Amino acid sequence: MNIKKTREYLAYYIKLKVMKHNESQNILEENREKIDIKQKFILLFPIVLRGLEEILDEIKCLQSIKQSLLLSLQRNTLGGKNFRGLCVIESLNSLLGRDLRENEFSEAAILGWLIEILQGCFLMADDIMDNSSKRRGLECWYREVGIARAFNDSQLLEACIPLLLRKFYKAHPFYLDLLELFREVTFLTELGEQKDLLSSAEAKRIFSFDLKNYDFIVTYKTSFYSFYLPVKCALLLSGNLNEQANATTKRLSKLLGYYFQAQDDFLDCFGNYASLGKVGMDIEDNKCTWLVCQAKMTATAEQLMFLEKHYGRRNQESVLKVKQLYREIGIPNMYQNFEEAMVEKIMTEINGIDESTGMKKIIFFKFFKLIHKRSR
Amino acid sequence: MNIKKTREYLAYYIKLKVMKHNESQNILEENREKIDIKQKFILLFPIVLRGLEEILDEIKCLQSIKQSLLLSLQRNTLGGKNFRGLCVIESLNSLLGRDLRENEFSEAAILGWLIEILQGCFLMADDIMDNSSKRRGLECWYREVGIARAFNDSQLLEACIPLLLRKFYKAHPFYLDLLELFREVTFLTELGEQKDLLSSAEAKRIFSFDLKNYDFIVTYKTSFYSFYLPVKCALLLSGNLNEQANATTKRLSKLLGYYFQAQDDFLDCFGNYASLGKVGMDIEDNKCTWLVCQAKMTATAEQLMFLEKHYGRRNQESVLKVKQLYREIGIPNMYQNFEEAMVEKIMTEINGIDESTGMKKIIFFKFFKLIHKRSR
Repeated sequence: MNIKKTREYLAYYIKLKVMKHNESQNILEENREKIDIKQKFILLFPIVLRGLEEILDEIKCLQSIKQSLLLSLQRNTLGGKNFRGLCVIESLNSLLGRDLRENEFSEAAILGWLIEILQGCFLMADDIMDNSSKRRGLECWYREVGIARAFNDSQLLEACIPLLLRKFYKAHPFYLDLLELFREVTFLTELGEQKDLLSSAEAKRIFSFDLKNYDFIVTYKTSFYSFYLPVKCALLLSGNLNEQANATTKRLSKLLGYYFQAQDDFLDCFGNYASLGKVGMDIEDNKCTWLVCQAKMTATAEQLMFLEKHYGRRNQESVLKVKQLYREIGIPNMYQNFEEAMVEKIMTEINGIDESTGMKKIIFFKFFKLIHKRSR
Repeated sequence: MNIKKTREYLAYYIKLKVMKHNESQNILEENREKIDIKQKFILLFPIVLRGLEEILDEIKCLQSIKQSLLLSLQRNTLGGKNFRGLCVIESLNSLLGRDLRENEFSEAAILGWLIEILQGCFLMADDIMDNSSKRRGLECWYREVGIARAFNDSQLLEACIPLLLRKFYKAHPFYLDLLELFREVTFLTELGEQKDLLSSAEAKRIFSFDLKNYDFIVTYKTSFYSFYLPVKCALLLSGNLNEQANATTKRLSKLLGYYFQAQDDFLDCFGNYASLGKVGMDIEDNKCTWLVCQAKMTATAEQLMFLEKHYGRRNQESVLKVKQLYREIGIPNMYQNFEEAMVEKIMTEINGIDESTGMKKIIFFKFFKLIHKRSR
């Protein structure tokens, strides 16, 4: 892919408002020397888009519907960190222990994009359920097109994934495994979302929050699709069906997912909008977060009543009071300690990986490096 | 299955409020003589329920989530006409040309229940999007549990279908075909829903309605999952992969779906709550219906302005005015003529079926008999 083509694509993304002009300038400049993995990954997105277009043409879809679906696909898939998508490529690279051939790269990248689409579907629905206002620096999709349309978009895009899998992997020896993998992970994630929803809606309010529930929400809602899914995709692409490698992936995904979600909770409360691209709403939304679970365990009876009074209330004053209480209890400090302990635990776990199963330590080191001390 | 067991199940459904006491009495009395297909079908539902329970146990799902999911499955799957589910059984029966063996019956019935679950998912989401109040004589699900929870339930139950397919049909030679069939039909239905949504939301209001759009909505939103899916399931179960049989199924499904949806539109406006179990909202919801398309084609300029003024308005007065206009234009009469023409068209089409492809005319005759002149 040459610079001219790259420039065309970038202009396209700017038009879609998923990329700022100066960002694209940066990419173009770096591009003069090398197209790095992320750029190569992004340049493959139009193939997925084209694939969906062909699927819709085959079933003689009305033009208006086709356009609305393609727009919603782009708007809700692009503009993120691409963390999950890139992990498929990086993991396959590590598993094979060599640079990927062009076709291997594309194969991994397209699976990566399907994970990014799945992520987009979850975010679209999440934002509605959490009353969020911003996502990736833009207005949330449901605020642009309305709740009903956004939910249908979310369901439709999710339904595109198996069709795209068929389009691109029909002849792959692990086609059925991939199909089932995506279905299972989608289901598990929605189960986590269900628990998340039920927890926030429960009449017992903060008294129902505890680390056992938190653990379930995190594992199901985050770990499976964010960590297990990309690595498992890479395992399948590399032809590795080793049961122990699979179990290792699950175990480490759970651990990394836990760390990742606790970070997310911390950033939602103490991070800043400029780097996050979204406005934290966990306190207003009465979410079962790492912070509130810790606060509950440490608070005095008086502080607990104060928390109960102000948590999950939709007014700025209460939110600030909860944050103030978090500081009084020393949550930021506890978070630092937690992070240190977590880092050690993850490192020990990674170092204990038996590489004779085909699994590579480097995969999880890279994962870890990506999320460690992140600010968005 | 003996009477005692039947009585237990019926008591169970009464408890769930999906069946009234006198209904169950009727069933029990008939049951003394024979358990007909519908009863046998309903008696197999607990197997599906148990299957989902096992799936959830395998993944160590929290009890609270398991209970909420099982409840929502029952509440949103039972209590309907079971028209689609029964069609799988009846069609397989016709295709094989003999009574079904016990295992064949169960195989068809479980697929039938998966279609009923899918239907439940669509209805849950539809009711939110259409602001409906009642469904199958009960309060709409979203009005009981809230919009966010109902949407998540809808997505979750839909995600259960491929898992249940794996559970019950993993070893079936057409497992992959079934998996892909359900995915494709789900996607097509959601596309139809999208067009339906976009049409009702369009700024051009009634001026964007026409029979071309109507045709797309009906084919995608209704025909595929209501008619094509059950017959195609039966074809696969019978081992028939004949391309022409498949094409016949598609063609007749489209025709029957069109008739069925036009009926639905007519009943929504002129049917009565007692037999429908729901309150019509198409006029308020600014829906692109058969009635409004006809009205648009026949109305004078003056009537058109009147229609534009009152269609899609959320007040009872406007709704009554639109209904009055429909009567003035003679819509009920036009509907009767349409129905007669449709009946003839369907009959001709059925009579033209080439049975040497394995397809049987009787399948579509039965279908037709079920929906002809229905009042709910």
